[in-house]
Formats: sequence, C-alpha cells, structure tokens
Amino acid sequence: MEKRIAVILGDGIGPEVTHQSIKVLNAIAAKYRHNFTYTYGLMGAIAIDKTGDPLPQHTIDICRQSDAILFGAIGHPKYDNDPIAKVRPEQGLLRLRKELQLFANIRPVTTYPSLHHLSPLKEKQLQDVDFIMYRELTGGIYFGKKELSDDGTEASDLCIYNKNEIERIARLAFVSAQQRRKKLTLVDKANVLETSRLWRKTVQEISSDYPDVKLDYMFVDNAAMQIIVNPKQFDVVLTENMFGDILSDESSVISGSLGLLPSASLGVSSALFEPIHGSYPQAAGKDIANPVGSILSAAMMLDYFGLYNEAAEVREAVAWTLTNGFVSQDIDPENPHYTSTIGEFASDYI
Amino acid sequence: MEKRIAVILGDGIGPEVTHQSIKVLNAIAAKYRHNFTYTYGLMGAIAIDKTGDPLPQHTIDICRQSDAILFGAIGHPKYDNDPIAKVRPEQGLLRLRKELQLFANIRPVTTYPSLHHLSPLKEKQLQDVDFIMYRELTGGIYFGKKELSDDGTEASDLCIYNKNEIERIARLAFVSAQQRRKKLTLVDKANVLETSRLWRKTVQEISSDYPDVKLDYMFVDNAAMQIIVNPKQFDVVLTENMFGDILSDESSVISGSLGLLPSASLGVSSALFEPIHGSYPQAAGKDIANPVGSILSAAMMLDYFGLYNEAAEVREAVAWTLTNGFVSQDIDPENPHYTSTIGEFASDYI
Ligand SMILES: CC(C)[C@H](C(=O)O)[C@@H](O)C(=O)O
Ligand SMILES: CC(C)[C@H](C(=O)O)[C@@H](O)C(=O)O
Repeated sequence: MEKRIAVILGDGIGPEVTHQSIKVLNAIAAKYRHNFTYTYGLMGAIAIDKTGDPLPQHTIDICRQSDAILFGAIGHPKYDNDPIAKVRPEQGLLRLRKELQLFANIRPVTTYPSLHHLSPLKEKQLQDVDFIMYRELTGGIYFGKKELSDDGTEASDLCIYNKNEIERIARLAFVSAQQRRKKLTLVDKANVLETSRLWRKTVQEISSDYPDVKLDYMFVDNAAMQIIVNPKQFDVVLTENMFGDILSDESSVISGSLGLLPSASLGVSSALFEPIHGSYPQAAGKDIANPVGSILSAAMMLDYFGLYNEAAEVREAVAWTLTNGFVSQDIDPENPHYTSTIGEFASDYI
Repeated sequence: MEKRIAVILGDGIGPEVTHQSIKVLNAIAAKYRHNFTYTYGLMGAIAIDKTGDPLPQHTIDICRQSDAILFGAIGHPKYDNDPIAKVRPEQGLLRLRKELQLFANIRPVTTYPSLHHLSPLKEKQLQDVDFIMYRELTGGIYFGKKELSDDGTEASDLCIYNKNEIERIARLAFVSAQQRRKKLTLVDKANVLETSRLWRKTVQEISSDYPDVKLDYMFVDNAAMQIIVNPKQFDVVLTENMFGDILSDESSVISGSLGLLPSASLGVSSALFEPIHGSYPQAAGKDIANPVGSILSAAMMLDYFGLYNEAAEVREAVAWTLTNGFVSQDIDPENPHYTSTIGEFASDYI
C-alpha cells in the first residue's frame, strides 16, 4: 500500500517522539511491503519563529495532499507566560482543525495492569476500564463569535451548533459503539443549555438507525464524577467540543501517565494523529520523553488506513516494551530508558 | 442573636436531611441563647406539584425577608426522564440564584482520614487536601441568550461576562485566600475564550489590592487533571459558572462521599446554604440519607452570621459522629445509622 503522510513535528518534545513513530512505521512498511512517504510541515511556536505564522499555507497544502497527518505537540512557555498574546502557537492547531474539518477527536482510554501503580485511582476503579471518547472538534464555543465591548468591560463567546455538525460525529460514535460493547453515553448539560438540547434531540433521532446500541444521557457535572468513581461503566462517550476538552483530559489521568495516550482527529477527507500530551518543553531535546503516546497514535493511523493487522502489531510491540520495563522516566524514574531506545526496541520487535 | 432563616426543604431526601440541620441549629440556639426562627417555602418538583411553578413568588418573598436560606435538594426522576420538559424543578433554583443575585458558590473540599478508604483516589493523593472552590453562579453561559432557529436545526447559548460580575466574586476569593494559605488559582480557557481573557485581565488588575496572595492561572482542561493527580496544590480556586459546575462536582469525589459536602451561595444581601448532593429520590422518606452535608452547610451559615465558635462546634459534633461510626449507609453499609439518629447524636453532642 502507498500512503503519503504529512509530518508536523511541532514544538518541544514533538520532534523526538514523532521520530520514534516514524521508526515504527518504517519497520511496518518493510515487513508488510508498504510504501509510506513523509512530507514535513511547520506548525506552532516553531512556525511562528520561522515564518511569523503558527500555520503557514505550505503546511495546510501538504496536509491536504496527504492521506494522513502525524503530529507531535504544540506550545512554548514564552507564549504561555503571556496567555493573551495576539499570536499563539495553539492558533495553528485550531486553524488546522477548522481548515481540514477535523470534526471528530477520538481518544481511547484503557489501562495497563503493569502500570496500575502509577494511577491516582485505586485498583478497584481501574479494573476493566476500556472506553473511547468522541469529542466534537470544529464547532461549539471554540469557533463561535467572540466579542469584546469597545470599552473592554464586557466579553462574550457564542456556543453554536447545527444538526449536521452533531449528526456527523454522532454517527461515527454509534458505529464505534456497534463494534464495541454497544453502549453510547451522550454527555451534555441539557438542563441548562439550548445547544445541549439540540444534541439530545439529534442524537435521539438518529439512534433508531442503530437499534443494537443502548443510548443513555449524562449531565456533564455528573460525568466529571463518574469518570473517576466508576469509569468502567463507559463504552463510547460522545460530547461537544468544550466538555470534551475537559473530560478527555480528566479521563487521561486514569492511565497513570499522559505519555501513553494517543488520539485521532478525523475529518471528511483527512485525519490527524497525535499523542495527547503537550510539548513538555523542559524535556525537549533530552531524549527522555515517552514516545508511546505518539507510537500508539501511529497505530490509530494504521487502523485508519485499514491496516488492522499492522496496527495490532504496533500495539503488541508497545505492550512488549511496557511489560519488559523498556520505559521512560515518567513510568520508571529509577531505571529509565531513552526515548530513542524505546523507539528502537519497539521497531526491532516488529 | 436573632436570625430569621428561610427553609426550603425541596425534593427527595431534602426534607429529612434539612430537619437534622434544624435540630443541630436548635441545639446551638439553646446553648448560646440565640433566637433562630424558621419560615418554610416551596421550590422544585414539590412546588410544581402544588403550585405549577418551581419557584412560587411566596418563596422568593420569604427568602428576601430572611437573614439566610437553608435549602435541601432539588429534582425528581419524572422530570429527569424528560430532560427537555418545559417546566423543570431545576429552573426554580436557577431563578432563585438570579433573583437574589447569589453570585458566589463556595465549596470547601477536605478529606477525613477516617474515610480515606471510601475515596476513589489513592492515599497519596488524599494527604493534606484542603481547598475551597469559588464558582461564579449568576452569569456566563447559564444566563446568556439562548436561541433555537425557527426550523429547529441550529441552537446557540451565549457565554457573557462583564468586569463587575468577575470582580465581585474575585474579591471574595482573594479575601478567602488571605485568610488561608494565600494562593489563588484562576481556572479558565484563556487560550480560546474571550470571556476567559476578560477574567484574567480583571483578576490580574485587582490582584495588586491583595499583594500577600500569590495568583496563578490554569487552563480548565489541565485543572480537570490536576484536581485528581495533585489536589493538595490548591488553596482557593476561582472560576466561572460552567467550569465551576464541572470542577466542583469532580472535586467532590475526592472526599469519598458526596453526602459529606456542604456549600454556600453568597449574594449581595442574602445567602443560601445547601449540601452538594442531589435529591436522591430512591432514598427519600427512608431515613437512610447522609445528613452531614446539610449539617455542615448549616455550619457555613453560622460562619456567615459571624458565629464562628458555634460553627466550629457544629463541625466538631460532625467529626465526633464520623470518628465514632455514627454514619449512614453510604459511609458504612455494614453498620449504618439512621439519618435522624445521626442528627440527634450530633445535636446531643452540642
Ligand atoms: C491547545 C488547545 C487549544 C487544545 C484545545 O483546547 O482543544 C488542547 O487542549 C486540546 O485538547 O487539543
Ligand atoms: C441543577 C443544576 C441546574 C445545577 C447547576 O448546574 O448549577 C447543579 O448542577 C448545581 O451545581 O447546583
């Protein structure tokens, strides 16, 4: 199979973790005789530094011309210290999502028994956790009209959704539930928000197309509790952009290390794959970051290409590194392995 | 001291837990020679049943005429099953907040060592947790304009804040921090929202009036992680209405039982005190609910009256019931005590 992959290394530890994914993808390509080609583009703080723009047109172009995008991380402390700066690295990512209509952010949440000791949650809460969150990514309060009054004393953000935006991600979530334990939980605040009521109505309407899936509803405040108290109750969780931002990061603590978790952002004709961790600038260039989140994102990309066996093999390679203690310092501070070593061991396994 | 207290028993277990608080308040009144008078009003599902209105004018009137409001719980399953019903119990509470301008919802989060085993978090996370959340309660997306297009395909909710709304709660939070460990964390999403940027700007501006308080900022997605991973880093947390709804419920899981936690909602000239748990209809009338959240809310009311010794004595009485195992089934399913028994033991202790 021929696949063109746009690679956006991004900021901080983005480059070093993404390079491990490329090693692993190359091992897969060699073994299964695929042809993966990589084209590189800039985004984030590094793009601002080099071009003044967090998302240069060239990057959008190469993304449009590829079959999928592999992305590292975004953000730099020099902008974080000035959170209301006019140009920010994160704008690059938000614009890329909108330009390519990457409307469905998908994050699987699972735990590795060998890593339960790292989780802030008790063993009891961790048993059998296996859910997947579908977060709407190109609508809601992120992209609605923002206003600041002339005298600067009043500000507003509009949260706005239409049925099409809701339906397209809801259908993906229903299909995912059909392939899993057949339960879909819509998280909203329908007792307060008009947009949430439109979500409920729309999701309820299309649910008849998926009669084998049990649909239930949960208010977002309750969901924020349930994710910690009883995470195994969830199978597929569907929610809007802002709630998804909060709940997916909350969910990520279950695993005990942010460094392990992958994500996919699917669009109409493109898809972006990235670890959920940030740019972790303190670790940049030190070869100490955890590459597993990025490598598992590459596995999600292989699934997206329909290369299910290959994806399964990448996950097996990762599980093998974890059980054999070939892990970075966030997992084992006593006996840490380098980012590049873990990438090599994983690709050698393949 | 003379105090007029409006009592809204509300729905579900609201009446039975609130009655225990009244026992305790009466014990305090007798011992310290205060004169507390109680006037009762309807709100919630019971108010809809009896008057058609979740918040009858009579209830607003008695609340305005009192020094403080003691409230039980709101909500009934017959409305939950129809989350988009036109008249809902919760509207009563939202309207009361707005009518009385109860703009600051305050929730202390602490843990009891004797109850650490109930928490979903590991012992390590629970050590030294002691923070207090200030949630803005009468602005933001809860009360901004809601629209549904004529054809029902598009919906919107406006999140809107002005400087005054931000400043009045921020000042309360700063003062609270001054009396505590002198750290204030503003939680927002300033990398995306215009309203969040107004929050940052306003809070930063007034921070010079509280030079002894260290102010820091945290994005809401990160806060959702930090509350679980490292809750002891927080002292006073300040946030807007919707984020506060989510994060305060998330924080409540730390203690291991929702039934233990109190809250206060302060306004310009009134204040409402309520346990954070809901109406728990399955338990209603069975004398099995945990009255501690309500009793500790009454203690917050005593603090509000300036009766600090009395408030401390109520907290001591509660701690005594907890350490002696006079607890409800949510805390000790093997050997549970009745709601009314716990209320009696606590008031006898006084
Ligand atoms: C960087 C930021 C704008 C972004 C978001 O809020 O969507 C991030 O938190 C994420 O979840 O990908
Ligand atoms: C009942 C509901 C409208 C309310 C809210 O969202 O404010 C509740 O969740 C709360 O936190 O008091």
